[in-house]
Amino acid sequence: MENSSIEKRVAEQMLLISRGAAEIVPEEEMRRKLYMSIKERKPLRIKLGLDPTAPDIHLGHTVVLNKLRQFQDLGHEVHLIIGDFTARIGDPSGRSETRRQLSDEEIKVNAATYQEQIFKILDEKKTIVHFNSEWLKKINLADVLNLASRYTVARMLERDDFSKRYKDGLPIGIHEFLYPLMQGYDSVVLQSDVELGGTDQKFNLLVGRSLQKEYGYEPQVALMMPILEGIDGVQKMSKSLGNYIGVNEDPYEMFGKTMSIPDELIIRYFELLTRVPLKEINDIENAMKEGSVNPRDIKMKLAREIISIYHSEEEAAKAEKRFKLVYSQRDIPDDIPEIVTEEGEVWLPKFLHDNDMVPSTSEGRRMIKQGAVKINGEKYGEEKLMIVGSMVIQVGKRKFVKVNAGQ
Amino acid sequence: MENSSIEKRVAEQMLLISRGAAEIVPEEEMRRKLYMSIKERKPLRIKLGLDPTAPDIHLGHTVVLNKLRQFQDLGHEVHLIIGDFTARIGDPSGRSETRRQLSDEEIKVNAATYQEQIFKILDEKKTIVHFNSEWLKKINLADVLNLASRYTVARMLERDDFSKRYKDGLPIGIHEFLYPLMQGYDSVVLQSDVELGGTDQKFNLLVGRSLQKEYGYEPQVALMMPILEGIDGVQKMSKSLGNYIGVNEDPYEMFGKTMSIPDELIIRYFELLTRVPLKEINDIENAMKEGSVNPRDIKMKLAREIISIYHSEEEAAKAEKRFKLVYSQRDIPDDIPEIVTEEGEVWLPKFLHDNDMVPSTSEGRRMIKQGAVKINGEKYGEEKLMIVGSMVIQVGKRKFVKVNAGQ
Repeated sequence: MENSSIEKRVAEQMLLISRGAAEIVPEEEMRRKLYMSIKERKPLRIKLGLDPTAPDIHLGHTVVLNKLRQFQDLGHEVHLIIGDFTARIGDPSGRSETRRQLSDEEIKVNAATYQEQIFKILDEKKTIVHFNSEWLKKINLADVLNLASRYTVARMLERDDFSKRYKDGLPIGIHEFLYPLMQGYDSVVLQSDVELGGTDQKFNLLVGRSLQKEYGYEPQVALMMPILEGIDGVQKMSKSLGNYIGVNEDPYEMFGKTMSIPDELIIRYFELLTRVPLKEINDIENAMKEGSVNPRDIKMKLAREIISIYHSEEEAAKAEKRFKLVYSQRDIPDDIPEIVTEEGEVWLPKFLHDNDMVPSTSEGRRMIKQGAVKINGEKYGEEKLMIVGSMVIQVGKRKFVKVNAGQ
Repeated sequence: MENSSIEKRVAEQMLLISRGAAEIVPEEEMRRKLYMSIKERKPLRIKLGLDPTAPDIHLGHTVVLNKLRQFQDLGHEVHLIIGDFTARIGDPSGRSETRRQLSDEEIKVNAATYQEQIFKILDEKKTIVHFNSEWLKKINLADVLNLASRYTVARMLERDDFSKRYKDGLPIGIHEFLYPLMQGYDSVVLQSDVELGGTDQKFNLLVGRSLQKEYGYEPQVALMMPILEGIDGVQKMSKSLGNYIGVNEDPYEMFGKTMSIPDELIIRYFELLTRVPLKEINDIENAMKEGSVNPRDIKMKLAREIISIYHSEEEAAKAEKRFKLVYSQRDIPDDIPEIVTEEGEVWLPKFLHDNDMVPSTSEGRRMIKQGAVKINGEKYGEEKLMIVGSMVIQVGKRKFVKVNAGQ
C-alpha cells in the first residue's frame, strides 16, 4: 500500500478513535501504531480491565465499551482482562468494602453476567477474554520485588487519591501500592498496544505504559474516555447514586430515564452512547441552538437509539408510544378537582357543562370538534364517552377534572 | 518457685540484659517475658537477623553478638536468621550496590565464614541458624498482599532514611517498602520474643513487633544496642572507613588498633566488647577519673581482654610484649644520627664516649649503672655490648644514636 493511502486510512481511524475521547496519551504514538498496523496488516491489541465484583453494567460503563466496539469495527483485537485475582483474595486488610472477597462460583457467575451484557455492544468473535489470575497466581515474592522495583514511592503517591489520603492523614495500606502495579503487569503480559479506561484511570493506565517500558516492551497508548454524568446531569453515573440507566433495564424504563436528562446532556449522550454518525449529531446540535427543534423530540430520538442497541428498534418504538401516553398525562396538574360518578356512557357536552368546564353544551360541542378536549392526554373527537375506571378529562390548556367511576 | 525469688532472678537478668543497651522497647514487657520464662522454665527466643553479603565481622558487629551471648548465658535460645532470600535475588532495580545478587555458592561460603567467626562469641550448642529463604520462597502474591496490607505507607515513610530521601526528591523503589515487611515476617514465622539490633535498626525491629500483633501473636521486644564508634573515636566502626578491628585480625594488629583509640572510648569498649564485670569497669572508670592509673595501661588491659576472646590469653600476652617493644621504640625521634660500625663486642662506656654521647668513659659507666642507657627501648645494665644488625642506643631522655653493624 502506498504511504499516502495508509496516511489517509490512519486519519480516518483517528477520527473515529478520537470521537468523544477525553485524552489520548501520547496521540502521536497512537497515530504511529495505527500506521504500522495498517502497513503490516496486523491488528492492534486493545486492552480493557474489568472488575468482576459489580457485574451490572450501566450506560456509564458503556462509554469505554462503545470505544472498544469502534476499534473492533476498524479491525483491531479486543482483550478483556477480568481482574479475578484480586477479587479472589479481596482486601486482605478487610478495611475496604469495595474489595470484597468473592468465591470462584461468584466470579464465574459475575463474569458470565458481564459477558452477556458486554456482547450487546462488543463483537464476541473479535473479543478475547482473559482472567488475570492465570498469570498472577504464578508470581512469587522474587517476582513481586522485581515488579515493585520498577516504580517509585514518590510517583505512586502522585496518584490523586493516594496524595489526598496521605495529606489528610488517612491510612494507605502498602498493598494498595501493589494493585496499580499488578494492573500494569497485566499490560506487560498481554503486550497491549492501547489500554482504555475512564479519565479516573489515567494514572493506572500510565503505570502499565511505564512498566512495559521497564520490561523492555513497546509501551501502550493510554486512551481515556470521559466519565459520563448520570441522568441528574450533575454527578457521575453510578448505581449507588441512583442516577443510572442499566443496560439490562427494560425499554420503557430506559426511555423514561433518558427523557429525564437535562437538555445540556443530549449531545454528549448522543456522542458517547449511540452509533449516530458525528455529522448527524452536529446537525442536531445546530438545530437545537437555532431553536428549530424541540429538545423533547431530540431526546426521544436519543432514547430510541439507545434502546435499539440493548433491545431492538421495535422495542424502542413501543417504549416511545407508551411513554408519550404517560408523559402527556404528566402535564396534568396535581391539584385538579376529582369527581365521583357512575360507570357508563355519557353525552360529553352535557357532562362538561354539568362540571363547569364549559359555559354551555353547544360550547362543549364546539370544543370537541376543535380538538380542544382530551381524555387521558389524547385528543377526543366524539360526543359520546364511556366513563370507566379513572379518567382525566381536559378542556383547552387549563381545565382539568379527574373522574372516578364505579364507586 | 516463689514469686519473690522469681522477681529477684528477673532483676538479675535485667541487669545483665541492660548492660550497654541503648533502648529496650518496651522495657516492662521485657521484664514480663523474663518473669514468664523463669516461672515456666521456658527459654525466650532471641532473634538476630544477619546479612550474608558481608561475612567479615568486626568489633562493631560483636556488640549485638555479645548481647546474644549474655542471653545464652542466662539460658535463653538464640535464633540467627540469615537473610539469604534477598541476597539471592539482589536488588532487582540494579540501583543498589549494597544489595548485590549472590550465588548459592557465595551464600554458602559467606554463611560458613560468618558462623566460624560468630561462634567465637556465641555458644554453638545454644544457637539455631535459619535461612529465611526457607519460608520466603514459598510466599505467593496473595501472601505478599496480605503481608503488605498490615502496614501503612505513612508509617513506612516515617523511617528516617525513607523520609529523608522522599523529602530530598531521591527515588525510593516500592520494593524497598517490602524489605522491612519481609524482615518483620521473619519474626512472625519465628515467633521471636526479643529481637536484637543496632539503634539504626529500631524501625525495622518495631515493624516485626507490629506485624506479630497483626498476625495475632505476642509481639517481640526490641532491644537496641548502640552503634560502636571506630578506633578513630569519631565515626561508626566500618570496614569502608578503615576504622575497624576485625575479629579475624591477628593478635598484634588487634593490640595496636586498640591502643590507638582515644581515651574517651576506653570505658565504652570495656562495656560493649569485653566480659569484664560491670563492677570492675566502674572501678577502672573511677581510677581514671582520679588519675591514679595511666590510660595507656588500661588500654593494654582492654586489648588483652579483647584478644583473649578471639584468640587466647597467651596470644594476648605475646601481643602485648611485642607491642611494648615497638611502642617504646616509637618514642625515638626520626632524625637521630646513624653510624655504621663492624659487628662484634664493644666496651659500651668507650663506645658512648667515642660517639659524643657522654663526656667521659667514667660518666658512661655511671649512666649505665643508673639505668639511664637503653638499647632498643629496654634498659641495659651491662658494660659489654654485642653490636649486631641495627640498634638504637639511648642515653638519658634526649640522646639517641642508631648503629648499623656489619657493613
